[in-house]
Parts: sequence; C-alpha cells; structure tokens
Amino acid sequence: MNSRSTDIKKLFEDACAGDRAALARLLSLIERGGDDARSVGRLVYPKVGNGYVVGITGAPGAGKSTLTSSLISHLRSKSQEVSVLAIDPSSPFTGGAILGDRVRMQSHATDAGVFIRSMATRGHLGGLSLATSEAVRLLDAVGSPCTLVETVGVGQVEVEIARNADTIVVVVNPGWGDSVQANKAGLLEIADVFVINKADRPGVDQTQRDLEQMLELSEIATDAWRPKIVRTVGTTGEGAEGLWQAISAHREHATRDGSLAKRREQRLRNELRAIIERRLEHRAREICTGERWDAIQNEMLARSRDPWSCADEMLAGIL
Amino acid sequence: MNSRSTDIKKLFEDACAGDRAALARLLSLIERGGDDARSVGRLVYPKVGNGYVVGITGAPGAGKSTLTSSLISHLRSKSQEVSVLAIDPSSPFTGGAILGDRVRMQSHATDAGVFIRSMATRGHLGGLSLATSEAVRLLDAVGSPCTLVETVGVGQVEVEIARNADTIVVVVNPGWGDSVQANKAGLLEIADVFVINKADRPGVDQTQRDLEQMLELSEIATDAWRPKIVRTVGTTGEGAEGLWQAISAHREHATRDGSLAKRREQRLRNELRAIIERRLEHRAREICTGERWDAIQNEMLARSRDPWSCADEMLAGIL
Repeated sequence: MNSRSTDIKKLFEDACAGDRAALARLLSLIERGGDDARSVGRLVYPKVGNGYVVGITGAPGAGKSTLTSSLISHLRSKSQEVSVLAIDPSSPFTGGAILGDRVRMQSHATDAGVFIRSMATRGHLGGLSLATSEAVRLLDAVGSPCTLVETVGVGQVEVEIARNADTIVVVVNPGWGDSVQANKAGLLEIADVFVINKADRPGVDQTQRDLEQMLELSEIATDAWRPKIVRTVGTTGEGAEGLWQAISAHREHATRDGSLAKRREQRLRNELRAIIERRLEHRAREICTGERWDAIQNEMLARSRDPWSCADEMLAGIL
Repeated sequence: MNSRSTDIKKLFEDACAGDRAALARLLSLIERGGDDARSVGRLVYPKVGNGYVVGITGAPGAGKSTLTSSLISHLRSKSQEVSVLAIDPSSPFTGGAILGDRVRMQSHATDAGVFIRSMATRGHLGGLSLATSEAVRLLDAVGSPCTLVETVGVGQVEVEIARNADTIVVVVNPGWGDSVQANKAGLLEIADVFVINKADRPGVDQTQRDLEQMLELSEIATDAWRPKIVRTVGTTGEGAEGLWQAISAHREHATRDGSLAKRREQRLRNELRAIIERRLEHRAREICTGERWDAIQNEMLARSRDPWSCADEMLAGIL
C-alpha cells in the first residue's frame, strides 16, 4: 500500500469518527474521479449500511431547494440527522456547480446534524451519476442515516440520478403543465411521491386531478406501491411533515414487499455495467489520439471515407 | 452486395427522386439502428450537400412546436421547402415518441413542400443523437435545403442534439425564470438566437433585460456572433419573420467568418468519437452476459467483491 492510499484510509477513518473536513475531502476525491476515487470506493464498499436515499427531482424553478430546506427543518425538529447532495449536471460548459440555490440552505450550514454538499459535472455525465452513487455510499458508510439527493432539472441524466434513490420524489407546481408535459419528462414512471409545491398558488386542484388521472391510467399492480400526492409550500415549510410521512410510508411499503432490496440490487448491477462502459470509453479516448487519428479524421472530413469505416480502423486493435 | 443493401440503394435513389414513402422508410431504418442504418449512412455520407440545420430547443411547455409550425408557415409563404425532425429523448420508458404536439403541425401535413417526422429514443440515448445526425444528413442528401430539428426538453441529450445544428434557437417564455435558471440549463452558452415566445404575456421586457444582461456578462469576442433576441407569439405567427431574419443573419455571419465550417467539422469529429464509444458499449453488452457475469454480480451483491474489481475481471479479455 502506498502512502497515498494510506492517506485516504486515514481520511476515511477520520470521516467515520465524525470529522467533516475529512468527509468533504473524500467527496472531492470522488468528484474528481480517477484512481483516488476508486481507492475511496473500495474502502467504502464493504462498509455500507442501511442509510436511506431520497431523490428529489423536478423541472427547474419548481422550488426543489426550498422544499429540501423545509424537509431538513422538519427532520431537525425531530432531531434526525440528514445529509444533502445537490447535483447539477446541466451546466457542462462552465465546469462548476451553480450555487445560487444553495444560499437558501445556508440556514442549516451551522447545524452539526446537517451535512450539505454540491456536486457538479466534470466532463462526462455518466461519471456524475457514478460519482453520486459513490458519494451516497460514502455518506452511508460514515453513518448518515438519510441522504437527500436533489437534482437540478428533468433531463435524462437527472432522471438517471434520481432513479438511484430508494424513494423518488417528483416536484411539480400548480399549472406546471398538463399530463403530456409530465409524461414527456418521463416523471410519471419514476415517481414514488409527487409533491405539488407552491400549493398556495392557483391551479393546485387541477394539477392534483391531472396527476390522479395519470396514475389511474398507468397500470399499477394491486399490491404495488401507488404513488402518493402531497401538497407543500416550500417557503413556509407547510406540508413538509406530510411529505416526510409519504416518504416514510413508501419506505415501509418497499421494505415490506421486498421492492427496496430489489431496487438496490438492480442499482448495483446498473452501476457495474456503467463502470464497464466508462472504462471502455476511457480506452476509446486513448485510441483516438495521435497521428493516425488525425489523418483518419482528415479523410473523413474530405468525405473520401465515411465515419463507420474510420471507426472500424481505429477499433481494429482492440475489438 | 446482398439483396438487402440493393433494396436500400433503391430506396435511396427513390428518395432522391422525391419519393416520400422511400424517405420515410430510410428514416425508420436509421431510427432502428444496426447494419441497415449503417448501410443507409454509407450511401448518404458522400452525397451530403449544403442543407442548413436549425436546432430549436427550450423547456417543456415553452411552445416550441407551435413556434416551429409558425416558422414553417413563414417559409412556405416564401415558397421555401423545409423539413422538420421532432426529437423526443425524454421518455425512455415508453419507447415511443409522444405525438401530442405533432397535432399542431398537422396543418402542414398535406403540403408537399414540408416534410415532418418524429424520432424517439430506442434504448441508448447516445444512439438518438447519432440517429438524428444521420437523419439530418439523409434529408440533406435527398435535397432538403433546410431542416428544423426540434427537441422536447433542456436536458443534456437535448442540448447535445441541439448543438449539432448550424444555428441554435433557444426558446424561453416571459417569466420563464431568472438568469440562474437559464444558466442552469446550459442554454446561454449554446444559443445563437434567443426567442421569447408567448411574448404577448406579461414579463416580456424583464425577460429581455435578463437575457441581455446575461449576454453582457458572457465574454463574446469582438468579431464573434452576438446572440440575437427576438420576440414571437407562436399561436398567431407574430414574429416568425423576425425569427427567420435572425436565423439568416447568423447563417450569413457564420458562413463569412468560417465558424460554420468549423462547427460542421467539429460535429463530424464528435460523431466519429461517438460511433467509437458506441461500438465499445456494444462490446461491453456482449461481455456482460452469461454464467461468469451472473456469478460475478452475485459476489458483488454479497459485498464480497467491489464493483471495480468485478469490472476489471470482465474487461480483462479486451483491454
């Protein structure tokens, strides 16, 4: 074992003992990826316990951060510890998380029972999803009983990240859109709990009816969990208790009928597959470099050769 | 050459001669992927001309379909031919494009100068982006002078697809959100033209100011294109002419300063890389099957082995 992995082992021990600076450093290593992230992952993997993961997703502007903040307040009023990962995959160009919303969570910043962390994309988006799973596992391993994973938008990556939760909360607003819009975002299929946030605004009854109608149209097996619909006002904290009850009800149901264990297994299988895909992509990047790569691209740009035969040649060595 | 590729060659010749049924069948082959899609691609690639591609993206509900429809009406009033590809990557669960919005375009369905086609995801999302590029090239090769590529949402895949356009139009609404929200979606960085659609609603001036402020804050080189902001009302067709003028102005600018040629080259390079990645993923799927794969997953689920060493073993044969 080299000195680098000795350092990481020490960091992990410190984090397990409650050292937040050590935890933050480990999360940075995970975010950065590469060998160090892998070392962290290997230490964490056997130590994972039963921390619960709640994914919170919904359209930009739906009030997810404010809602998350009110959920934290509710949990803290019951003296429960909670961690929050705020994931921002949607700005691949700037390379950093936008922290505007995080300001709303600052009221919890000095609370030792709350741990909040933003994670942004670094290059590859599949990487962010893997890093999020890894971060969730780390928080679990150091003893966090519950992690809220909040994503910024409703794109494919966000949906993918939200799916990696034990309970998936989808946030909509009154008048946010008709069933077609919600369907488009692929949200109906993944929600365990629907939250109509900003429920003090007009249109809340219509949105509730829309969601109920969607649920009626979707074929849910008799014994399966039927997504609950709750109303909240994130800014006042109204409805946070009801939301937590709905999340807890889903947790109990999923634990009882075995769907939680199945979901977690499927998650790990997906993750292994994603790791393999990512390794292969890494290999592709290694291949796609150098003189031959430049020459072959020029042939393609001159249209003397099509992209598929170029790909064939570059891959000839490894496939 | 086998009979299958003879059929495809015939279809392509027919499509070039104006046969729409043949064109539709070729697009289906592209959408379906695999060897046939590749055969189509190889035929099309050397025949690509100078068809122009306009990407239209924005949040769900921003009115993209209605706007696209009014853009079609404007172009048809000037007797210009136009093709539309409506791309829906956001419902990976149902496996089919949601055609609700397409209804709005039905007024153009009987117009021989308009070709409209929906494409949805089939499994892998990277595949949809590649299939879209391929479909755009096919439309170009059969003589379509202009293709509008409309995407449904603002997730990463939609942004990726929109980026594959010569001019990128980003649709927002009055009060759609502050600059932080637009930034989040990564839209500021990719827009060549901003459209404030539903400009008959309150808040349009504020939205215009927000966008202008964002543009001021972004560092645009002196000679570079400065994104234009136009206002439209999709439902009445108001502003469609101004939008087309802005698109044309960008086209002229990008042609003149060489950025169009550069963008197209970069697009092809990205596509080659994506083809290579996709082949490797395909190989990964082949590897991840069978008894050894099942056994190794069980070791992982039992936590006797971590995902990375499992991946190492599965990849040992090819990397």
